[in-house]
Amino acid sequence: MCALSGGRPGTAGAHQLGGVWASRTGSAPGLAAVSYGPPGSETTCPGGAQSGSQRCAGTPQGLDMACAGCRRWWLPKIFFSAAGLCVVLFILKSVYLQAKFDSFKPEPSRPPLVLKLLPEVQLRNLFTYNGIWLFPKNQCDCDSMHLRRRYNFQDAYDPAELQAVKARRQLELEHFQRREGLPRPPPLLAQPNLPFGYPVHGVEVMPMHTILIPGLQYEGPDAPVYEVTLRASLGILNTLADIPDNVVQGRGQKQLTILTSDRKLLKFVLAHVTYTSKVYQHNKVDTVSLEYKSSVAKFPVTIRHPAIPRLHDPGPERKLRNLVTIATKTFLRPHKLMTLLQSIRKYYPDLTVIVADDSKQPLNIQDDYVEYYSMPFGKGWFAGRNLAISQVTTKYVLWVDDDFLFTNKTKIEVLVDVLEKTELDVVGGSVLGNVYQFKLLLEQSKNGDCLHQRSGGFQLLDGFPNCVVTSGVVNFFLAHTERLLRVGFDPRLQRVAHLEFFVDGLGTLLVGSCPEVIIGHQPHTPVTDSEWATLEKSYSKYRTNTNAQIQYKLALHYFKNHLQCST
Amino acid sequence: MCALSGGRPGTAGAHQLGGVWASRTGSAPGLAAVSYGPPGSETTCPGGAQSGSQRCAGTPQGLDMACAGCRRWWLPKIFFSAAGLCVVLFILKSVYLQAKFDSFKPEPSRPPLVLKLLPEVQLRNLFTYNGIWLFPKNQCDCDSMHLRRRYNFQDAYDPAELQAVKARRQLELEHFQRREGLPRPPPLLAQPNLPFGYPVHGVEVMPMHTILIPGLQYEGPDAPVYEVTLRASLGILNTLADIPDNVVQGRGQKQLTILTSDRKLLKFVLAHVTYTSKVYQHNKVDTVSLEYKSSVAKFPVTIRHPAIPRLHDPGPERKLRNLVTIATKTFLRPHKLMTLLQSIRKYYPDLTVIVADDSKQPLNIQDDYVEYYSMPFGKGWFAGRNLAISQVTTKYVLWVDDDFLFTNKTKIEVLVDVLEKTELDVVGGSVLGNVYQFKLLLEQSKNGDCLHQRSGGFQLLDGFPNCVVTSGVVNFFLAHTERLLRVGFDPRLQRVAHLEFFVDGLGTLLVGSCPEVIIGHQPHTPVTDSEWATLEKSYSKYRTNTNAQIQYKLALHYFKNHLQCST
Repeated sequence: MCALSGGRPGTAGAHQLGGVWASRTGSAPGLAAVSYGPPGSETTCPGGAQSGSQRCAGTPQGLDMACAGCRRWWLPKIFFSAAGLCVVLFILKSVYLQAKFDSFKPEPSRPPLVLKLLPEVQLRNLFTYNGIWLFPKNQCDCDSMHLRRRYNFQDAYDPAELQAVKARRQLELEHFQRREGLPRPPPLLAQPNLPFGYPVHGVEVMPMHTILIPGLQYEGPDAPVYEVTLRASLGILNTLADIPDNVVQGRGQKQLTILTSDRKLLKFVLAHVTYTSKVYQHNKVDTVSLEYKSSVAKFPVTIRHPAIPRLHDPGPERKLRNLVTIATKTFLRPHKLMTLLQSIRKYYPDLTVIVADDSKQPLNIQDDYVEYYSMPFGKGWFAGRNLAISQVTTKYVLWVDDDFLFTNKTKIEVLVDVLEKTELDVVGGSVLGNVYQFKLLLEQSKNGDCLHQRSGGFQLLDGFPNCVVTSGVVNFFLAHTERLLRVGFDPRLQRVAHLEFFVDGLGTLLVGSCPEVIIGHQPHTPVTDSEWATLEKSYSKYRTNTNAQIQYKLALHYFKNHLQCST
Repeated sequence: MCALSGGRPGTAGAHQLGGVWASRTGSAPGLAAVSYGPPGSETTCPGGAQSGSQRCAGTPQGLDMACAGCRRWWLPKIFFSAAGLCVVLFILKSVYLQAKFDSFKPEPSRPPLVLKLLPEVQLRNLFTYNGIWLFPKNQCDCDSMHLRRRYNFQDAYDPAELQAVKARRQLELEHFQRREGLPRPPPLLAQPNLPFGYPVHGVEVMPMHTILIPGLQYEGPDAPVYEVTLRASLGILNTLADIPDNVVQGRGQKQLTILTSDRKLLKFVLAHVTYTSKVYQHNKVDTVSLEYKSSVAKFPVTIRHPAIPRLHDPGPERKLRNLVTIATKTFLRPHKLMTLLQSIRKYYPDLTVIVADDSKQPLNIQDDYVEYYSMPFGKGWFAGRNLAISQVTTKYVLWVDDDFLFTNKTKIEVLVDVLEKTELDVVGGSVLGNVYQFKLLLEQSKNGDCLHQRSGGFQLLDGFPNCVVTSGVVNFFLAHTERLLRVGFDPRLQRVAHLEFFVDGLGTLLVGSCPEVIIGHQPHTPVTDSEWATLEKSYSKYRTNTNAQIQYKLALHYFKNHLQCST
């Protein structure tokens, strides 16, 4: 009822009613004096009519002028009812907004706020995790960590060669990034008020395949003719609609143009646009655009080949033997290995055990379910680990060290249950009840990333309140075989190493820890048998974490993992 | 000048001018008679005024009525000039549109188009690759391929157990899919005419980290107060803006509300909204919403931990020895292995060669750069392949069979160049010049996927016109060691197998073929040495692709790869 009128400037009454809104003279009771947008902005009627072309009900004078010669006896009645209703609605809305303002503690009358950001001190408080300030930052560093051991990895290099090493590392990083599609292009931003519907996220097509693009719409103003263009770069466009070529041009090309004056036809064609990938590639994103006049919407179409499944049949009885293989590596400690094997067989008589051995003398193990692999002498700790897991044929592999001891608390079934029911790739237990869990936090930076190791877990594991999600655990864990191999154990780590595996797994392995599953550890007491004693002495020599090895591992972190430092 | 008027129905003149557009009586010269939308739709003025509330310049009569008592001497002049200009503009636009229509071959006068899709016959023509109809389909099948060998994998199972096998496979598939985030949720669709700017694609945050959300804007109509709400589910929101809590509520929560009447302040806050991931997880997508009154925009924020780099230092001189390791597997053919090694050493005296051997008697190879691994007897072909690659410490690994022969055409450097410069993971050469390349096309389906193997390549390799992108090659290839291990060779494949590796690699390995790099093959002539002859006889026995093995492999494709059939 607040209708079109032939309003002209100077009709004071009309502006009075609408004008209160625009100038805030306070004629509505109780309304706070607040400054609004600049004068001349579109007015709002009570009752919500928003368009700039509409004005509140005009004066009797204006209406009379537009209506010369009409029957007018009913007009004043309608007019005054309408005006009265408008006033009532206006008052109601003011009261409502006032209440809303009150709930937010009305801002006192004051000059406009200065637009500034929070000071760095406050930002540090807001965006810190585990004492590490994460955002916003351009560089990372390890120096601001107090009372923490820190490593600066480039110190492991001879200063004379550091420059050359840095350059080589940069080249290798660039190759790696090219293959990973890094750095990502800046985010695709949608502009406001686009007259289009389109898919924002989730449109995927396999290479060489075709999909229907969902959600394409044009909802702009009517026009005598509509010319809508779609453009792609890594694929071609078409439509399933059966229409002549003068309506759709560019079928099977990178640019498809729809030209029609029939809005229903336009809608129909848009609802049936197809995208066909024409280049065989992995993990690319095509930016497809949808245009009408000067309005352009852009949306992503991801070209991706899903990884083919690699499922394992647990067999009709789901025997543990068909689900889990035990793997271990041994070196110069055959007595310890045999003790481990005996303890396994006490609880799990038929689980396959894979043994990788780089001792001088190969062993002859009499056990139908032990698979024994001989390696070059002293080839190494992680080489042996990688070898052992490369031979697993079951869905899960349980890693144990050769000096562990199975007990009645070593319940593999519990670990299997965790992996079956969660999204973890690896779940560790505890050794002799000692809980060992650590988080790894990575800060990325151009000169090399900063790695922060902190004990504990990130959060409880959904569905398993005694377990946590973390980044690293002990050498007693169950893992999805495929995921474990995807990371692998770097064969260059020959002697002491542990953390390195979990660092290599960052971003790939989701790790959990369930300390209630416990494995024992054989005592460190010296052996009585003289032959074994000699071997153990030899073993200890290899086992020492010499300075040269430490330097080697730090240098490896620098180059391989593109790290700058760690705390 | 085509202005508001107090037009009333029945004023024939007014409708004549505007009405021509609506009913197409052909009064504009040369304009084709085309049917448009239903009568009563909004009219368009020449000159482009689009709003439904405006009409073209009214009649002198109407204007007179609206202007009783005004000075009127100048009105007719202005009116006729305006009307004249309107007519001119109208004619110009008609001519323009006519020209545009002409370029598209004007549609003859006919009833509205029936909205239908192309018949299946035509769709098959449009969306076929290599003779395989790919789209649109619900199910895949292998039966429509004529003259092609096809395998139906479930035939490899005893019909009595097939039902149970199917059920187990389905359970395993569901577990796999859960871990992979499948099936993907339906695409996120943007509605038209949202008054928001927001990021459509590309916003990623590491778990536990914080990012700024780019591109947030509100560009709707002015209002006395703006209440804009942002909602997240897998993380919390905040703002870097330094403003009081009565303007922004919910800082550090999943719902952030901005309430202000200051448009500049709203813009400032929106430009500095942060998202913090609060749950440690991999590869999740949070749908964040931006709301104002009834308008809602939704956009994705991806929570993803980038895979940490695993770079290899090629050393200051980029010696091939630091870049490439050769790997092979041997069984009961020590003479062939030695011949291979001798041929390698002729061209590459210091490349490391890894030999995995599951023969009965271990060999003693006198070569400083050969690493020899002993396996349980007859453990198997793919187990040995997996073992060998698990020991590689260089960036690339070159796979060769133990009966190949290096020649002067066996240029490893060419293959290295290809992998260094392209995105391929694997590049194969040719054996004795025989080009062997095959494409693998996968059609996904609920009951198991259909796999189609076709010879040749998908396209030429960018930058290497003698090479193609394909899916499978010969057993002579250079590969990124990490990528190769990510797929691995399934140790369950003990005897004859080749294709299976490339099938397992679908979606993970990008494979190319450069046939100009040629390796020789040792002749199949029987050996004279009696000891070797005995071994070869034994070897041949193991090498036979028995029916039992074929059935085993088909069953493996059924379960492991979730395949239905192949052609």
